[in-house]
Amino acid sequence: MKTAVIGLGSMGGGVAASALRAGLDVTGVDPSEAARQRFGNRAVARGADLDAGQDVVLVLTVNAAQAGAALFGEGGAAARLTPGGVVVCSATMAPGDARKLAAEAEAMGLLYLDAPVSGGAVAAREGRMTVMASGSEAAFTAAKPMLDAVAGRVWNLGAEPGQGAAMKVVHQLLAGVHIAAAAEAMALALRAGLDPHTVYGVVNDAAGASWMFKNRMAHVLAGDDTPLSAGDIFVKDLGLVEAMAREASLPVPLAAQALQLFVAQRAMGQGGRDDAFVLRVWQAIAGFALPGEPGGAEARKPD
Amino acid sequence: MKTAVIGLGSMGGGVAASALRAGLDVTGVDPSEAARQRFGNRAVARGADLDAGQDVVLVLTVNAAQAGAALFGEGGAAARLTPGGVVVCSATMAPGDARKLAAEAEAMGLLYLDAPVSGGAVAAREGRMTVMASGSEAAFTAAKPMLDAVAGRVWNLGAEPGQGAAMKVVHQLLAGVHIAAAAEAMALALRAGLDPHTVYGVVNDAAGASWMFKNRMAHVLAGDDTPLSAGDIFVKDLGLVEAMAREASLPVPLAAQALQLFVAQRAMGQGGRDDAFVLRVWQAIAGFALPGEPGGAEARKPD
Repeated sequence: MKTAVIGLGSMGGGVAASALRAGLDVTGVDPSEAARQRFGNRAVARGADLDAGQDVVLVLTVNAAQAGAALFGEGGAAARLTPGGVVVCSATMAPGDARKLAAEAEAMGLLYLDAPVSGGAVAAREGRMTVMASGSEAAFTAAKPMLDAVAGRVWNLGAEPGQGAAMKVVHQLLAGVHIAAAAEAMALALRAGLDPHTVYGVVNDAAGASWMFKNRMAHVLAGDDTPLSAGDIFVKDLGLVEAMAREASLPVPLAAQALQLFVAQRAMGQGGRDDAFVLRVWQAIAGFALPGEPGGAEARKPD
Repeated sequence: MKTAVIGLGSMGGGVAASALRAGLDVTGVDPSEAARQRFGNRAVARGADLDAGQDVVLVLTVNAAQAGAALFGEGGAAARLTPGGVVVCSATMAPGDARKLAAEAEAMGLLYLDAPVSGGAVAAREGRMTVMASGSEAAFTAAKPMLDAVAGRVWNLGAEPGQGAAMKVVHQLLAGVHIAAAAEAMALALRAGLDPHTVYGVVNDAAGASWMFKNRMAHVLAGDDTPLSAGDIFVKDLGLVEAMAREASLPVPLAAQALQLFVAQRAMGQGGRDDAFVLRVWQAIAGFALPGEPGGAEARKPD
């Protein structure tokens, strides 16, 4: 069985490594030579350079446009799949885009699994991502060896491509609002003179806990804005939330507000830094010191 | 050692029961006869009816005004404490109000522990609340038997009353925004035709998870709006967040937006129902069916 992973960034690179570790025959695909070298296994620049007869091609690009180009554009990978092979599309995108890509794949005699993921770079590397998938039973079956290698759990959202994408967009509403809320709460705590390390312990131990508060505020306490996931990603993903909700005629005031905060992070020239540092939007306004900065708490990894 | 718990609502009633189970000599105080009967142990209507010589009096009223009246108003409990006895004030309030109550207690020769709590009615009943406390070492020591009986963990926020209150207000920012975000996400999921039970499973398993999503959306899936904590509580608590932040000259756009959503729940005449049903604000606008309603998913407790 031949498999490929398109997109060797922090998520896709981890997925490709997990698939390799699980014993799959994996080729990586990424236009960046640095990304291909980081993968360290066989890797090519374009889908067209893959061996013919691929059984499973997993796509983890940044968005739908990149996924479409990598599969069906000039030099795309779709032509290298075996008849009845499956495209597993894990990029975050609008449900309508997932349906369009599925239709293109099906027109070429391929199966399509709409299969966005969650869990971050660490879960990708460890092969225990949460996958929220929709598609035909045949697509699930064909994708199974890859899913077994990279997922901690696979949720079946239904038979129609687009349902997985919709679930991921709903999920990103929560993820994005939780990161921005974590930053807003930490800003208020710092402004009130509370010790940020203690605040971190209390919140994680109480009903205000969230996966994102625990994960992202650790970056703030360590004074480390290296982007595990950049603020710009939530400009994109909360944009998808706002667009999907508008199309459904549903107001999403919290997501819309959180989006503006990530836009503000970007406006500060910080959109490429870790998304936890959306906190600097409040800092720019109110002027408190962050851990590791002069006058701030000591920066350290949380206990 | 004589102890009392003032306020026998869903939180205070649980605390009093936990203290009793731990072997403390506890008298409950509540003007409501129904609340006193629910407690089932010795209980009085007013603090002034307590035996003299109380060592620890824990206050779990709805707000600072009620706490002040119950302690220092006509028929208040403060006069029934033994000299050097400790007031443990666990109501959610502004840091300035905590400092005022502490000053009143200290003027009477009493110790004061600013000790708000988190964990909900279940944790209160099981004696495993998270306590975020500040006060003198003497106050912590005097309060220890009561804290040991009711808390899973006690966090020391510092020596000054007001720091515990500030921590709780920061915590409520997260708690309130997370409940409203959970409702907003569930509204979008229902509008997109996703199965709410599957959405619940996916979110709890992924990076969008929060304590509040898991706890509150279970009420929505069960179609049960019995108020374990009413929407009106967050009109109050997010009001405290907004006021504390305004005083600190810090904008809190997410908390301010979430506050308006609970105000909307109240405007619908639903402020006395469970806070998870802030979801009905979106329902009123967009018209989808909730679990257990005609056309909605089957209402059931989540797996």
